[in-house]
Amino acid sequence: MFITMKPDATEAESQAVADKIRALGLTPHPISGAERRVVAVIGNVAGIDPDDFAIMPGVFEALRVSQPFKLVSREVKAEDTIIDVGGVPLGGKAIVVIAGPCSVESRDQILEVAHAVKQAGAVFLRGGAFKPRTSPYEFQGLREEGLKLLALAREATGLKVVTEVKDTETVPMVAEYADVMQVGARNMQNYSLLERLGSVDRPILLKRGLSATIKEWLMAAEYIVAKGNPNVALCERGIRTFETMTRNTVDINAIPVLKALTHLPVLIDPSHGIGIRQHVPAIARAGIAAGADGIIVEVHPRPEKALSDGHQSLTPAEFEGLMRQVRVIATAVERSVVVRS
Amino acid sequence: MFITMKPDATEAESQAVADKIRALGLTPHPISGAERRVVAVIGNVAGIDPDDFAIMPGVFEALRVSQPFKLVSREVKAEDTIIDVGGVPLGGKAIVVIAGPCSVESRDQILEVAHAVKQAGAVFLRGGAFKPRTSPYEFQGLREEGLKLLALAREATGLKVVTEVKDTETVPMVAEYADVMQVGARNMQNYSLLERLGSVDRPILLKRGLSATIKEWLMAAEYIVAKGNPNVALCERGIRTFETMTRNTVDINAIPVLKALTHLPVLIDPSHGIGIRQHVPAIARAGIAAGADGIIVEVHPRPEKALSDGHQSLTPAEFEGLMRQVRVIATAVERSVVVRS
Amino acid sequence: MFITMKPDATEAESQAVADKIRALGLTPHPISGAERRVVAVIGNVAGIDPDDFAIMPGVFEALRVSQPFKLVSREVKAEDTIIDVGGVPLGGKAIVVIAGPCSVESRDQILEVAHAVKQAGAVFLRGGAFKPRTSPYEFQGLREEGLKLLALAREATGLKVVTEVKDTETVPMVAEYADVMQVGARNMQNYSLLERLGSVDRPILLKRGLSATIKEWLMAAEYIVAKGNPNVALCERGIRTFETMTRNTVDINAIPVLKALTHLPVLIDPSHGIGIRQHVPAIARAGIAAGADGIIVEVHPRPEKALSDGHQSLTPAEFEGLMRQVRVIATAVERSVVVRS
Amino acid sequence: MFITMKPDATEAESQAVADKIRALGLTPHPISGAERRVVAVIGNVAGIDPDDFAIMPGVFEALRVSQPFKLVSREVKAEDTIIDVGGVPLGGKAIVVIAGPCSVESRDQILEVAHAVKQAGAVFLRGGAFKPRTSPYEFQGLREEGLKLLALAREATGLKVVTEVKDTETVPMVAEYADVMQVGARNMQNYSLLERLGSVDRPILLKRGLSATIKEWLMAAEYIVAKGNPNVALCERGIRTFETMTRNTVDINAIPVLKALTHLPVLIDPSHGIGIRQHVPAIARAGIAAGADGIIVEVHPRPEKALSDGHQSLTPAEFEGLMRQVRVIATAVERSVVVRS
Repeated sequence: MFITMKPDATEAESQAVADKIRALGLTPHPISGAERRVVAVIGNVAGIDPDDFAIMPGVFEALRVSQPFKLVSREVKAEDTIIDVGGVPLGGKAIVVIAGPCSVESRDQILEVAHAVKQAGAVFLRGGAFKPRTSPYEFQGLREEGLKLLALAREATGLKVVTEVKDTETVPMVAEYADVMQVGARNMQNYSLLERLGSVDRPILLKRGLSATIKEWLMAAEYIVAKGNPNVALCERGIRTFETMTRNTVDINAIPVLKALTHLPVLIDPSHGIGIRQHVPAIARAGIAAGADGIIVEVHPRPEKALSDGHQSLTPAEFEGLMRQVRVIATAVERSVVVRS
Repeated sequence: MFITMKPDATEAESQAVADKIRALGLTPHPISGAERRVVAVIGNVAGIDPDDFAIMPGVFEALRVSQPFKLVSREVKAEDTIIDVGGVPLGGKAIVVIAGPCSVESRDQILEVAHAVKQAGAVFLRGGAFKPRTSPYEFQGLREEGLKLLALAREATGLKVVTEVKDTETVPMVAEYADVMQVGARNMQNYSLLERLGSVDRPILLKRGLSATIKEWLMAAEYIVAKGNPNVALCERGIRTFETMTRNTVDINAIPVLKALTHLPVLIDPSHGIGIRQHVPAIARAGIAAGADGIIVEVHPRPEKALSDGHQSLTPAEFEGLMRQVRVIATAVERSVVVRS
Repeated sequence: MFITMKPDATEAESQAVADKIRALGLTPHPISGAERRVVAVIGNVAGIDPDDFAIMPGVFEALRVSQPFKLVSREVKAEDTIIDVGGVPLGGKAIVVIAGPCSVESRDQILEVAHAVKQAGAVFLRGGAFKPRTSPYEFQGLREEGLKLLALAREATGLKVVTEVKDTETVPMVAEYADVMQVGARNMQNYSLLERLGSVDRPILLKRGLSATIKEWLMAAEYIVAKGNPNVALCERGIRTFETMTRNTVDINAIPVLKALTHLPVLIDPSHGIGIRQHVPAIARAGIAAGADGIIVEVHPRPEKALSDGHQSLTPAEFEGLMRQVRVIATAVERSVVVRS
Repeated sequence: MFITMKPDATEAESQAVADKIRALGLTPHPISGAERRVVAVIGNVAGIDPDDFAIMPGVFEALRVSQPFKLVSREVKAEDTIIDVGGVPLGGKAIVVIAGPCSVESRDQILEVAHAVKQAGAVFLRGGAFKPRTSPYEFQGLREEGLKLLALAREATGLKVVTEVKDTETVPMVAEYADVMQVGARNMQNYSLLERLGSVDRPILLKRGLSATIKEWLMAAEYIVAKGNPNVALCERGIRTFETMTRNTVDINAIPVLKALTHLPVLIDPSHGIGIRQHVPAIARAGIAAGADGIIVEVHPRPEKALSDGHQSLTPAEFEGLMRQVRVIATAVERSVVVRS
């Protein structure tokens, strides 16, 4: 159950609500960061009547929520969340395109890609500075040097920057440079990181864990929102199945399911998803056709020389071709692609 | 290795090739039904030089095929297979739409649906007369009566009929009524059935098994083609994963992968795939955007009263809306939807 | 709901029960082959009181069954099914060991293996005469010749014979030679085959489908039993997961779950399961420790020369070592291994 | 490739090796914490001859390692790692039993369980003080208070303490109280945490991720060992599959596979694995029969009142029964259960 206070509710009125919750053997859980004071009622609320709270002074409404994810649910908030990233909308009717290399490798590389993807119509630049790698012996990213190069590319092109944060220690550093902070698939249930990101003033792009159910994924988003950061976007990037011909199995089904369950924006990452360059455009198109609010695509000027994931990166020319197709498909679902103002 | 004889090769020349294969400790496997005589060489061909055969009298070419699936592979035949179903093309640039109820239930029901889906633009009518069901206590279909009703609906509308065959015993009966015979997911590796369908004069729609790899699926198609029936279309209908919010996980990734590996047409069944009516159009659109050659969609005039799978059937009106979106998406991939002449 | 008639119930009494079922808008489904007349009530029985039937003349009991599988459920029959295979018990407290080659290859091979596994303590000989293979170009078995060799080995050793039946056409032929007929994983939901085996006078060893849930597997067994053959044993042989280091993932968890849900015997096939010779004994031991009623193990005198699956076959000496371990583990679960009388 | 220096190698000799590696276009990666200086050679070593290094002054041996996991591989170290936990061996021939509640709930609860499991034969006490939970609204553990209670129970019983660490921030705090620090399944690829644990003077119990392959799991262990902590034990706790009747699918197959690939100890957690109390003993027995070096079992005096995971906890009496069975099975694999001295 969720109890929302009126804007002008007094502290004493809030206190009375919390007291009543405790008197019923339940626990009040204040939601930080929401516009109004909201209290989640934790425990078995099966026998409790919301009206008992709704009539209390200072209470705006008391709502029973059937799903275990609450703040991110459409039951609690019906309209789409539109995240304002320095003037660029993420979510809503417009479709955003994020593009860039897997890893930031050098000044020249990131500037070249940034100009190319901007030219083709991207509004966000992606690029990894901290790279979680399966092997301790692989390239782990340029770290702060990489973040600085991303900021430089932003300055040069006006593109917004999306980059991964991989642990709580580097949250302040990444927040300093990034416009949107990405949580990778392997960290989707790193709850200490999620909670820390709940108090950061940056939107979060939360990738789906390799074997996370849709429900678990929404619960992970709930962690961030419950700690005070309502600006979370979800990104489907492929799940693990028995099929070995593709890197992962992009779960296109998750897109319409999520759009019905949550008000958060839903993006798709076809590059890590299918993991085969020639097939990336097909999956990107499918994502938009299924209702995704955006795509995040790996682009590299010379994929065969990339330090990571070159086999799944598009060339700038291939990316431009994809953009043309995406614009047509957007019209089929009565949407359009966000362009730089 | 595959050895193709010239059109005018003599029996003695073919015999000489077979003898040479045996002399090398390998086994000749004649491929029935191909336009020209083709012999697959079975065994370890690693040390054999195709040129040793290519120079023999009557031989057109000798080709090493790297994949375990051979006749269905693009290595063996680069151009798309276009199956001619009584004048309607299945495969190639045109996109086919197959629609109809899960089960044939009655004369009125099948006629009503047939007219409705024809009106909206379908060129094939689907409908199950034999229904393999998980439980022995569930509705198993109207059997021959259902086949007769499908034939009636074909007569009334001009739509071609696709229906499932579930065992070898009923192959002749189903072949008598159907334009295309469907093999269900649970029978994908029923090799006796596949072999029997290799000698039937009807195109086959081969659904993917619930946990079949793409390779195993192509091998199942190979069974049919190797026995003499080259007219096989593949249909992705969702695989089994850990996710429980959807009935199956439609593997959209399989579509571009298959289109690169095989010349056979590739369709998608969004209805059984995601299994939730409101989300069927999203998956259908995604399939076309990813490059599928057609869709097979469940449509029922009153889904809530269907004897099977009503929760995943579109109403005729919803189907019509989907058709409009599909036509736009087809243009994005430079294709168009097949219409009735 | 299940209604069991008294042994001396009259035809008229049975008819009255069926009429009452129909009068309630439900369907009576007589179960063939059970010792007494049993009628399953198909349809929504939520509002029906079993006592309304229990008081009717000739009715022994009326039982609500919560699971979709009914005849195979412990709710319907609490005590273990013990199948009598010509004097050898399959099921109950005793543990059976089935061993032999993947394929019957020759007279000498099958006789050599049969003597070796008998010597080590097996009571059943396994061996494939019909081999469903992923590729149409692979060795498909010796067919009837293989069955004859199995019968010969039975005569020579007294071992009972377990062999696979792969289609309805060959049911009579296989039944002529086999003591137990095996249904392979790929045919677990070949309902025409299951129904046919319901009227055969041979016990059935039903392997689990590659991605069959436990519930689907029990429903497949229900098909056979509902058609009149109560002698079904289940065999766990590994499911399909994302792990690629092993051939399949033997689902050891299924064993205790099944033993609680069903009265049918449950065996384990470690050979096809893990698919790596050196690890087969570990999985066989685990199966017995988890409560399996038997194991089915591939043994080949010269695994490196086997026509199929040699990489997962034990040598006779390895099998003998395994038998010694199995006997000790059996005592830990208060059981013992069946020996030839 | 791995180059091990002689114990008395000079700094200049080490330097010469590193220089030669760089001269070949490769990267030297010194392994911290190993007894001798070891340098991993990172990059494509296909064309490099180990003997070119083996003959250099100060070099003990140069070894090509085929697996991507190196330090944890049996190729690099053939004999079992036996971790000395304050006199109790973890790994080797002896089997360890870890038992205790899912969460530490109170002084009385943890003391009661500790005495009970000690009585039944456990040598380690488990108990969660920090609980990563899917929902932000669930009980998250007593935190430091829980750690203090575990230490108290250790003092009272002499049992060693195993408890989970869930983030880098709390590593020092957990290390202060725990004898063995556990990394949970969701953190298996939390590389910042793994690296931090590489420099902690405590053994690590690394649980398998829900959909981690065996290879990825070994790579995660490699992270810890490569950073200097060789005392890592692996714990299979069930993977995610399509089956929903059990909480997870305990991958019993992983046990013999791991025992062949790595020298690290391998344990099994049947409680989280199957997640159903009545079936926990079957899985525990299977684990030991398959070759596991220990089990970690949830025990709670009143499972129905547990704050977390009560439905999968054994009572002390059930645990005692399990211990008796485990001792018999241990003899079948020529091992015995560690007892408190």
